[in-house]
Amino acid sequence: MRKWNFCAGPAAIPEEVLRDAQNELLEWNLSGSSVMEVSHRSNLFAEVATSSMRDIKALLNIGDDHEVLFLQGGATLQFTSVPLNFTKKSSIVSYLNTGLWSKKAIKAASKYASVNVVASSEESNFTFVPNTQEWRVDPDSIYFHYVMNETIQGLAIRDPISSEIPVICDMSSCILSEEVNFNNLDLVYAGAQKNIGPAGLTLVIIKKDFLEKLMKIFLIFLAIKKIVRQAPC
Amino acid sequence: MRKWNFCAGPAAIPEEVLRDAQNELLEWNLSGSSVMEVSHRSNLFAEVATSSMRDIKALLNIGDDHEVLFLQGGATLQFTSVPLNFTKKSSIVSYLNTGLWSKKAIKAASKYASVNVVASSEESNFTFVPNTQEWRVDPDSIYFHYVMNETIQGLAIRDPISSEIPVICDMSSCILSEEVNFNNLDLVYAGAQKNIGPAGLTLVIIKKDFLEKLMKIFLIFLAIKKIVRQAPC
Repeated sequence: MRKWNFCAGPAAIPEEVLRDAQNELLEWNLSGSSVMEVSHRSNLFAEVATSSMRDIKALLNIGDDHEVLFLQGGATLQFTSVPLNFTKKSSIVSYLNTGLWSKKAIKAASKYASVNVVASSEESNFTFVPNTQEWRVDPDSIYFHYVMNETIQGLAIRDPISSEIPVICDMSSCILSEEVNFNNLDLVYAGAQKNIGPAGLTLVIIKKDFLEKLMKIFLIFLAIKKIVRQAPC
Repeated sequence: MRKWNFCAGPAAIPEEVLRDAQNELLEWNLSGSSVMEVSHRSNLFAEVATSSMRDIKALLNIGDDHEVLFLQGGATLQFTSVPLNFTKKSSIVSYLNTGLWSKKAIKAASKYASVNVVASSEESNFTFVPNTQEWRVDPDSIYFHYVMNETIQGLAIRDPISSEIPVICDMSSCILSEEVNFNNLDLVYAGAQKNIGPAGLTLVIIKKDFLEKLMKIFLIFLAIKKIVRQAPC
């Protein structure tokens, strides 16, 4: 009998998905190989990437204003790369603090930019989401960052964010579990291992016009702009 | 009939390995789950990590002077994180230039430290390995870096390196394909997808006393020292 792991981190994968993967493990799509063995430069693999991006867009109801990227690592790599990609030392960035993952993202951003914490419920041990009327977003911020669902303390933000400045959202532990309007979201990242599949991959959804605001690239492997240009589709 | 992909990048995996993975995909080790589904904090998973490290040490004949780490990404993430972890702006680092991957590593290091190229065959289009007698290693270097096997131009360095300063080696395209003496190697990295398995993981082997030379951590996900401390074994 199969067991179901509902913990944070790696968790249960639907049995039919595992059975499909099992059936195709030695021979995938009549290629004579496992999908893990085909060249990353082959048309076969390009089609996997293209169709996965297309499927994600369809499932999330995302239009052509956004790019879908499959990047390395998890949420930590992303919330570290976001300030590296979008700020310089004098930049102001705004963060909402609603729990452990917010705090980690704030700490990472503080190394590269000036962080304005718009509101926090840390003093009450993260037992409530601060009222939006009390958020003090610096209008000069490069972006506003929040975590839609905090896995440790349990705070969730369901209402869409209305903001004059670009909005960045960590959706690791709620993506694909509910309907979300992406129109007002400029950059969304989600580590795959919580809601999508095995660990090692992060889904990034970025608005094309926000891409144009990328600063000079600091670390080549974090260079989102370059990755978009090299993508097979 | 199975096909064999010998290209650089993802390549053929032994059929018996694929068959084992296929058999265990739904139920692994009587756990009632796929190995992809079990908690990263469970004893079951800790045993996978511990035994994999033990097996790598046995296969490579590495003793207890070295740590074995399984990190995210590929060689690019590693040759970028090496200067971030070991240097400051005024540091000198020495690199041998024998091809495309050497050049990429030199370019990455140049952003964080002063790079001394000890020898290069670039002017002759990388058709020979410069004679070791002509290498000009700066004695004040934090480390010496070389690529054991260059996949594009084909230059390989088989002789062990004798050096007063710590030696770092990119072994992505030759690891586990020949016997290597690790005694004089302080840090070795190898992207898994060339010689070991599917893409997404990098093997890092680091001498414990070299770990002590790590500089203040710059990016949390590149923090090798922290990863070692948190490792299950």
